[in-house]
Amino acid sequence: MKFAELREQVYEANSKLGKSGLVVLTWGNVSGIDPTRSYMAIKPSGVSYDDLKPEDIVVLELETGKVVAGDMRPSSDTPTHLVLYSQFAEVFGIVHTHSPYAVGWAQANESIPAFGTTHADTFYGPVPVTRLLTQEEVRNDYELNTGKVIAEHFSASRIDPLAVPAVLVAQHGPFAWGPGPEKAVTNAVVLEEVAKMALFTRQVRTAAEAVPEFLLEKHYRRKHGPDAYYGQK
Amino acid sequence: MKFAELREQVYEANSKLGKSGLVVLTWGNVSGIDPTRSYMAIKPSGVSYDDLKPEDIVVLELETGKVVAGDMRPSSDTPTHLVLYSQFAEVFGIVHTHSPYAVGWAQANESIPAFGTTHADTFYGPVPVTRLLTQEEVRNDYELNTGKVIAEHFSASRIDPLAVPAVLVAQHGPFAWGPGPEKAVTNAVVLEEVAKMALFTRQVRTAAEAVPEFLLEKHYRRKHGPDAYYGQK
Amino acid sequence: MKFAELREQVYEANSKLGKSGLVVLTWGNVSGIDPTRSYMAIKPSGVSYDDLKPEDIVVLELETGKVVAGDMRPSSDTPTHLVLYSQFAEVFGIVHTHSPYAVGWAQANESIPAFGTTHADTFYGPVPVTRLLTQEEVRNDYELNTGKVIAEHFSASRIDPLAVPAVLVAQHGPFAWGPGPEKAVTNAVVLEEVAKMALFTRQVRTAAEAVPEFLLEKHYRRKHGPDAYYGQK
Amino acid sequence: MKFAELREQVYEANSKLGKSGLVVLTWGNVSGIDPTRSYMAIKPSGVSYDDLKPEDIVVLELETGKVVAGDMRPSSDTPTHLVLYSQFAEVFGIVHTHSPYAVGWAQANESIPAFGTTHADTFYGPVPVTRLLTQEEVRNDYELNTGKVIAEHFSASRIDPLAVPAVLVAQHGPFAWGPGPEKAVTNAVVLEEVAKMALFTRQVRTAAEAVPEFLLEKHYRRKHGPDAYYGQK
Repeated sequence: MKFAELREQVYEANSKLGKSGLVVLTWGNVSGIDPTRSYMAIKPSGVSYDDLKPEDIVVLELETGKVVAGDMRPSSDTPTHLVLYSQFAEVFGIVHTHSPYAVGWAQANESIPAFGTTHADTFYGPVPVTRLLTQEEVRNDYELNTGKVIAEHFSASRIDPLAVPAVLVAQHGPFAWGPGPEKAVTNAVVLEEVAKMALFTRQVRTAAEAVPEFLLEKHYRRKHGPDAYYGQK
Repeated sequence: MKFAELREQVYEANSKLGKSGLVVLTWGNVSGIDPTRSYMAIKPSGVSYDDLKPEDIVVLELETGKVVAGDMRPSSDTPTHLVLYSQFAEVFGIVHTHSPYAVGWAQANESIPAFGTTHADTFYGPVPVTRLLTQEEVRNDYELNTGKVIAEHFSASRIDPLAVPAVLVAQHGPFAWGPGPEKAVTNAVVLEEVAKMALFTRQVRTAAEAVPEFLLEKHYRRKHGPDAYYGQK
Repeated sequence: MKFAELREQVYEANSKLGKSGLVVLTWGNVSGIDPTRSYMAIKPSGVSYDDLKPEDIVVLELETGKVVAGDMRPSSDTPTHLVLYSQFAEVFGIVHTHSPYAVGWAQANESIPAFGTTHADTFYGPVPVTRLLTQEEVRNDYELNTGKVIAEHFSASRIDPLAVPAVLVAQHGPFAWGPGPEKAVTNAVVLEEVAKMALFTRQVRTAAEAVPEFLLEKHYRRKHGPDAYYGQK
Repeated sequence: MKFAELREQVYEANSKLGKSGLVVLTWGNVSGIDPTRSYMAIKPSGVSYDDLKPEDIVVLELETGKVVAGDMRPSSDTPTHLVLYSQFAEVFGIVHTHSPYAVGWAQANESIPAFGTTHADTFYGPVPVTRLLTQEEVRNDYELNTGKVIAEHFSASRIDPLAVPAVLVAQHGPFAWGPGPEKAVTNAVVLEEVAKMALFTRQVRTAAEAVPEFLLEKHYRRKHGPDAYYGQK
């Protein structure tokens, strides 16, 4: 099998997503790229997670989007993934889901505030929501433009994509990412949990406030960077 | 077994419904009709999904409602199914459930707004709620009249039943349908997911707005019609 | 084993409750009485559903509450069950749970309105909430008095316990019952589903209205009495 | 294996937590101490519940925090556990989770009111929320200070930790405890259930009221102290 390692890795991450409880039917997809950032492997479009096999994973050239391995059509969200890899130089795995709590916030066009430490452990600030796409952006190259508005938001707001490894596309749903496909799935799981907790928090107290900057920083540094002390060495 | 293929198909769709998480106890039912639109097969009334066997599926003449195969009583909702097939010429499978989020909206007598792309991928517009039945319509031929108010709504509002393959019966619950019984069950699953997300969206922002027409159209065309590009060829 | 049939039946109903998703830990209990209304069998106190065996079921004399079979202590809610059997002449099975949606309404001291047909299929009217117990009633014979306020409500409001086979004890939780222990568990399952749907309905529309009397009656008569046509003959 | 009994006991409690539905990924941890209050055993940091083995459990000296058995890093929340054991003389097991309903209340900085008997059976009063930590307390010895604000709250409010065996750390999440690690996990399960019910109660009636003192006392005395009559002797 060509690109065996990459396809196996992306297959495993898709299987993990299928068992995560985040997806129903064939919704959602995970992609990953090789260390040289030349090739992207991604779930085929509309295939059920139970039926998925490593050889079903489609491989494309990152720059041209040309399929170089696999017999199936890649996910219809492929252009979104390609744009994100081209803009986020340290990202090596991306996941898209329609997980219900995250979609609830996305459909309300609201960022998820950093209400507590569960959020802060993974996201150094709110999980942002993009602007709405224009009619023109929807009609032509819709999926490509979806990637562009995500990248535009992170660039304009100067957010490091690995410090806030997820976004809500307005009126659509979440994308999450990471230094590899498996970690991207983990971040999608955390995002859904955080979206759920944030809704409960709003229901308990409409005017709930986000954590202060020093708490955000503390939790982020516990898990990231040279002074991290969470987990095993 | 008479009508073996049709009964097997309807049995499989009912089994899928039983495992979908949408139903408790013996609630819900799936029907399907043969390609000539002469016969309808449907779940028997009040039988548990675990006990159900293909030979329990009841077959009726579509025009007369006369039972032509099966030893059990058909679902008490049978007259609703019969009316819908008589009015919706391209529908070959129908499902009725009391899935809780969809019932939540139905009991509130509110249509489910098209808040996002998850909705738009399956429903080209809001999932409508019917008018209330009158005392007369409830007292006599209740289930028949339930079908009539559904068909009346789609006809008066000029909605294509395959473009919006579900409805909420006011103070009651959802019916979903499709080009076959299995797809009808899939649409019932999507409806419940969409009803849940729409409630979450309202909870995040009471004044959340539906997607614009061009986004509805884009998502519908991605999956339906000659330019569809979702899934495998 | 003495009272083998009754204990087996009550054991089965408790097992069904344990698998229903309505209970956590050792919470909840089911009782049943023999056809002569002389003996009551009930779950022992504080025993996990996984460990429960038919011979653990405790049997008491209905009139005196004296234990006549079984080596364990009966449920601490035993006096509530005994009072209800003494007052509700057609009830042969009772279940108590702390299922979360029903408790949510009970703790708010609100009856569950009959918002739709799912409710009306089992409950001919709202599921009522009792008055609060007084300090005196709590301090002395608390569980006995719990039964008394339930019976008081049904008697004063002239509600037939089999037409509305459940109640919410204010600031406490639900009791459900039926013509036997298994049906009592089914009614507890329906109650929790109906409590959940009613909360969703309120969340969609705060001013949601209950169904009209003629719809209540129609659904009740579909399943009960001489003209019932739901289920198999 | 050194400290075999204590590590086995803490391993079992962590396994129980992993299966409880309260935790996702590697979140959460349970600790326990030996009868002489000299040693504490705790889950290693960032290890999945499925992979956990008894020999992975880390043992520390309670007074110094020095690791005396186990090859892995202890949970990053270790200093919080150590402080709590030093302040709560009758506590022999502690659990920390990010269970979503309890976190919902913690992130809203609200205590969970004692809305009903489910709450009162385990918690003799509201489950309190701590004050926010200061910038100084977060920056230096964060986990130690987390334990201190918990102990400070119980001491200043004169709450017996075994009468109210849980707390919400503001903008963070719950800690629960008990006379041993297994009972601590049970209390964490009850806390999450109670947090869920309390949210539902608020959603049904914003102005819902807590139970009166005499009902709190009755339920607490049913299960605790010389006159307890719940469970087997």
